[in-house]
Parts: sequence; structure tokens; C-alpha cells
Amino acid sequence: MAAPEVPSSHAYLLDAPTLTLATIDPDGRPQLSQIWFIAEDGVVRTALNTQRKKVRNLEANPHATVFILDTANPQKYLEIRGDVELEPDPDYVFTERMCVKYGSPPIREWDGPDGKRVKVTINPVRINAVDMTGGEPTDA
Amino acid sequence: MAAPEVPSSHAYLLDAPTLTLATIDPDGRPQLSQIWFIAEDGVVRTALNTQRKKVRNLEANPHATVFILDTANPQKYLEIRGDVELEPDPDYVFTERMCVKYGSPPIREWDGPDGKRVKVTINPVRINAVDMTGGEPTDA
Repeated sequence: MAAPEVPSSHAYLLDAPTLTLATIDPDGRPQLSQIWFIAEDGVVRTALNTQRKKVRNLEANPHATVFILDTANPQKYLEIRGDVELEPDPDYVFTERMCVKYGSPPIREWDGPDGKRVKVTINPVRINAVDMTGGEPTDA
Repeated sequence: MAAPEVPSSHAYLLDAPTLTLATIDPDGRPQLSQIWFIAEDGVVRTALNTQRKKVRNLEANPHATVFILDTANPQKYLEIRGDVELEPDPDYVFTERMCVKYGSPPIREWDGPDGKRVKVTINPVRINAVDMTGGEPTDA
């Protein structure tokens, strides 16, 4: 089955500066945080420090959902549920691509000599592109 | 143990117009959507139409997380993981309080004669008040 795609009505949200990543913690609760990302090749990618709890969550349960709210028009948002692949990034190759996107100092310096990053790829399984404009309660 | 509280640095986020609600779907994936809410008495409440998948998710798994991004300064956000209580709202008493907050037409009219709502209370178990301002990669 072909992977789902983001409809053109919501494609601009992939240019947002950050997105909300949801993983599932060891207690079975959703854990949400705001992260940098790169959208490319029909998937969402990010680089995470392996010391973060969300990496351990993903190692234990490779399901994640990303959520991008239109901060200028919070009636619109994009939800992508996906299966996650984790790949070591020992030379910070992918990680430094994220630095370039964000114009940040090298993340390797932030992480220090013992730092380790994984490249995280979220392969879409289900995409919901929502527009609540027009009067319906956001309900829900 | 006392319930965790939102620190004063992030209390203003409880005045946001909407928040992101994360539940866990039948496949064990986080499901995220943007909803109306009322913050009161140290908890977050909302009213959901019982036909929504997120209600079925919560009936099966009463764990939910709410997430409020500062849309004016997306460096700041609030994450509240909680245990959920569902109570029928047959007379739309709580639901209509949400209409008053939002200045909306009566939700009962939207729902139609067969509509049913539940009052959803999210009791905080863990609160993360995050401020990424200052240069650290949002990482992550």
C-alpha cells in the first residue's frame, strides 16, 4: 500500500520551525515535546540525543506521531502517525544537516565528546490534515 | 502525593484558546488533535462527543497528555500527562459551560437530538513546563 501523503492544502505546515513529537512513555502515557525536524522524501526526520527519554521510548515502542499546528491560524493542523526507524549517526552527518537548516552552531559541540545522536525517521502510516475553520466547535 | 501544579512561569498558557490532546489509539499509536478546554481546580477539562474516536481511545486507555504551545513564542510550552475520568453529561451542563467560555452557539444544536457528550477530566500526574529560549538546540 502506498504511503499516505500530506495534501497540498497543508503542505506549507512542513515548513514550520518546529513540530510536536509524541512518543509513548514506559507508563503507557503519551510524551509530547517540541523539536526541530527535516521533512523530506515523504517522511519526517529528526536527530535526537540518545540520552533523551524519548529515544528510550522509541527503542521500546517505535510508534510516534507528529503534530504541526498553524500558529498563525490554529484552526489548521497536520497529524502524522508513523512507524519509526532509528539509525545511529556516529559522525553527526544527518545531525549537522539539521544545524544547517536551523543555522545553529554544531550540535556536536552542544552534545560534548561523549554525545551520541540517532537519526529518527518517521514513516507515515496515517495522515490527518484538519481545517476547523467555519464554525463547527473544535470539539473534537 | 499532592498533584503537580503548573508553575507560575507557564500559567498563562492555560488561557490559550485551544490545546493539543493526545490519546492512544487501538493500534497503540498516539492520536493528537486540537480541542477546546476549560482549566479549573488544578485540572484540565473538556467535553467530547461520544462518537469521536478519542472517546473510545480514552474508554479503553484512560491516559492522556495535553500540550500547549505558546504560539507567539514557540520556545515555551506546557505538557501535562494525566489520568482521565469520563462522566456522562446527559443534560449538557458542563458542555454548555464550554460554549459560554467560547461564545459559541449551543453545542447541543451541533450534536443533534441523538448527540451525547462526556465530561472529560484530566488529572495531572506529571507536568513539564519547558522554556527552550537561549540557544540550546530544541533538540530534543
